[in-house]
Amino acid sequence: MAALSFLLHTTDPHSAARAGTITTDHGQIQTPIFMPVGTVGSVKALSQQQLKSEVDPHIILGNTYHLYLRPGMDTMEAAGGLHRFMNWDRPILTDSGGYQVFSLAGTRKITEEGVTFRSHIDGSKHLFSPERVMDIERSIGADIMMAFDECPPAQSEYKYALNSMNLTHRWLDRCVERFSSTPDKYGHTQNLFPIVQGAVYHDLRKASCEYIASKGATGNAIGGLSVGEPEPVMYEIAALCCAHLPKDKPRYLMGVGTPWNILENIALGVDMFDCVMPTRNGRNAMLFTTKGVINIDNKKWERDFSPIDDGLDCETSNYYSKAYLRHLFKSKEYLSLTIASVQNLAFYLWLVREARKHILAGDFKSWKDEMVPVLKTRL
Amino acid sequence: MAALSFLLHTTDPHSAARAGTITTDHGQIQTPIFMPVGTVGSVKALSQQQLKSEVDPHIILGNTYHLYLRPGMDTMEAAGGLHRFMNWDRPILTDSGGYQVFSLAGTRKITEEGVTFRSHIDGSKHLFSPERVMDIERSIGADIMMAFDECPPAQSEYKYALNSMNLTHRWLDRCVERFSSTPDKYGHTQNLFPIVQGAVYHDLRKASCEYIASKGATGNAIGGLSVGEPEPVMYEIAALCCAHLPKDKPRYLMGVGTPWNILENIALGVDMFDCVMPTRNGRNAMLFTTKGVINIDNKKWERDFSPIDDGLDCETSNYYSKAYLRHLFKSKEYLSLTIASVQNLAFYLWLVREARKHILAGDFKSWKDEMVPVLKTRL
Ligand SMILES: [Zn+2]
Ligand SMILES: [Zn+2]
Repeated sequence: MAALSFLLHTTDPHSAARAGTITTDHGQIQTPIFMPVGTVGSVKALSQQQLKSEVDPHIILGNTYHLYLRPGMDTMEAAGGLHRFMNWDRPILTDSGGYQVFSLAGTRKITEEGVTFRSHIDGSKHLFSPERVMDIERSIGADIMMAFDECPPAQSEYKYALNSMNLTHRWLDRCVERFSSTPDKYGHTQNLFPIVQGAVYHDLRKASCEYIASKGATGNAIGGLSVGEPEPVMYEIAALCCAHLPKDKPRYLMGVGTPWNILENIALGVDMFDCVMPTRNGRNAMLFTTKGVINIDNKKWERDFSPIDDGLDCETSNYYSKAYLRHLFKSKEYLSLTIASVQNLAFYLWLVREARKHILAGDFKSWKDEMVPVLKTRL
Repeated sequence: MAALSFLLHTTDPHSAARAGTITTDHGQIQTPIFMPVGTVGSVKALSQQQLKSEVDPHIILGNTYHLYLRPGMDTMEAAGGLHRFMNWDRPILTDSGGYQVFSLAGTRKITEEGVTFRSHIDGSKHLFSPERVMDIERSIGADIMMAFDECPPAQSEYKYALNSMNLTHRWLDRCVERFSSTPDKYGHTQNLFPIVQGAVYHDLRKASCEYIASKGATGNAIGGLSVGEPEPVMYEIAALCCAHLPKDKPRYLMGVGTPWNILENIALGVDMFDCVMPTRNGRNAMLFTTKGVINIDNKKWERDFSPIDDGLDCETSNYYSKAYLRHLFKSKEYLSLTIASVQNLAFYLWLVREARKHILAGDFKSWKDEMVPVLKTRL
């Protein structure tokens, strides 16, 4: 078995958009790609069958913090890792748990050693250190393991962002050390992606990119964006990071975002995305479609018996009507959550597949400029 | 298009169990059959695709009370009936709403005219009369419409049960009158099934069966059982009703029950069943399997990586492990509700298909006597 490799097919002549292929021991990933989030080993409200047949993502994401707390690493190892536990034979990426520790856990304390926190489930006390997180991601068996980082708050002052970035770099060294000295657990090769930090400061981001790139990892991630900064700032920093990260490795922008965020960042050279938005907003009756955004709760859909989105080649989107889906939401039926989540994820995957087609065809930039206003339309 | 017909293939030599085929304008129903409950036009936590491919019921049930309140009959008619609204092309049976009016609605008042009640959704006031209910079931477009009845409480005194039965009979006459004088709405033939009442009193049940049978309906139902009476009483009354209802028409025992209830009542001559138990109990982590009953919440399943039920030819039951399903329940993931509901419904449909096979093979009674203790086993 072999480490992850990246083949860059094309770069768009009118933007920095790229089409490539990532090869892992669990199969190939055509980029640009969107990765649905399967927090505790389940993409919320979808079965693995629905995920494969209706959404068809080449890779999904699991959350280290959640899986560590439940089912716990003893059960995870007894199962033979997350692929077997959830019965998913395509690639899996795990985050480092850092973001959840800051957003979900109770009282937490950051030291040089790591982060001490209390479980949001039972209040029990835990330590996440770079070494501990590497061990956990080994136990989960992710094809792509994210390095343990500190993600500073959106409005961090320069000094805080600098110190935080340096801590993230020192933690990265410890991650690399632990990763390099521990074996793959389940017969397939695991990969470590480091994460660029530096908040909204150009010099910090540039320094962080250079430090991260020096590790020669099989892929690199951009963290700390889409955390409250204005969209133009997000694009500015993403562009800067893409310019300073290796061309021959996949670039992963963490936690982004809306459909138009994804197209704009593809144009800047990003290859991989993840976000809870399609599933979370779907569960709140907000649909992303090929024709624009729909609030399916709205009275205007009460007797609209047209398919949810006939622009997608997805059975669910064509099988159920807007009126029926609205009725299910009004009636608080579980099926509403499934249909909306399938629609939104199928749409996100359609979007990145279309983007790839247009990159390969050489007309990505003009297609993207036409699509963005369509996708933003409130129907 | 034609009224529902019933072909009786075999009666078991050692019990009153029957194997038959019901033909409707939406296709055939092999009996004995279990009908999953799709209250508001959705079998809870399943998609129509999962229902067809994993459970494969020949017919499902919709609740008149719920559908009347939401989406309402204007939307229902605009959609072209429930088959089109939910995109389900197999037979549908609707109850009369009577049971829900008594169990769910707010303050209600029974008169000769019908039942006045307040919606459990918004408190608005409504009247269900035999005529009104026939009109509503016409608008829903059910293949099988249930007559409007009063279902008396479990411990009804003789006098209350007698008066209630007579009211149900007078309401039946009005149902038949309205049904006969109104056309099918959507091109397929609708059928009216009357309901036997009479609580636990043998003479009342016999009288009710005879009255109901005199209507010459295409099928007949037994109501007012599984409402709190002891199991032996349920079997006694079901046997009595089966003995006094026409042999050449399907017999439907409403709202029953556990897997062993279903086998015992098949042995008494019942052809059709419905119950919320498989889905409701499934959502509460109780699994019915070919090997017995499982509380999947239990710690003992934490590291049991065997399939949920390898005795079923259902993808979901074989794809996911007990440990994974337990983890999903512990994590309150929506997928837990779907998997448990699919398992339980697939099991119920397997059970009636197996029963049918054994009736056709002539060894139903001995098979049933072996199965009942297995199905009751607490694993
Ligand atoms: Zn996000
Ligand atoms: Zn029941």
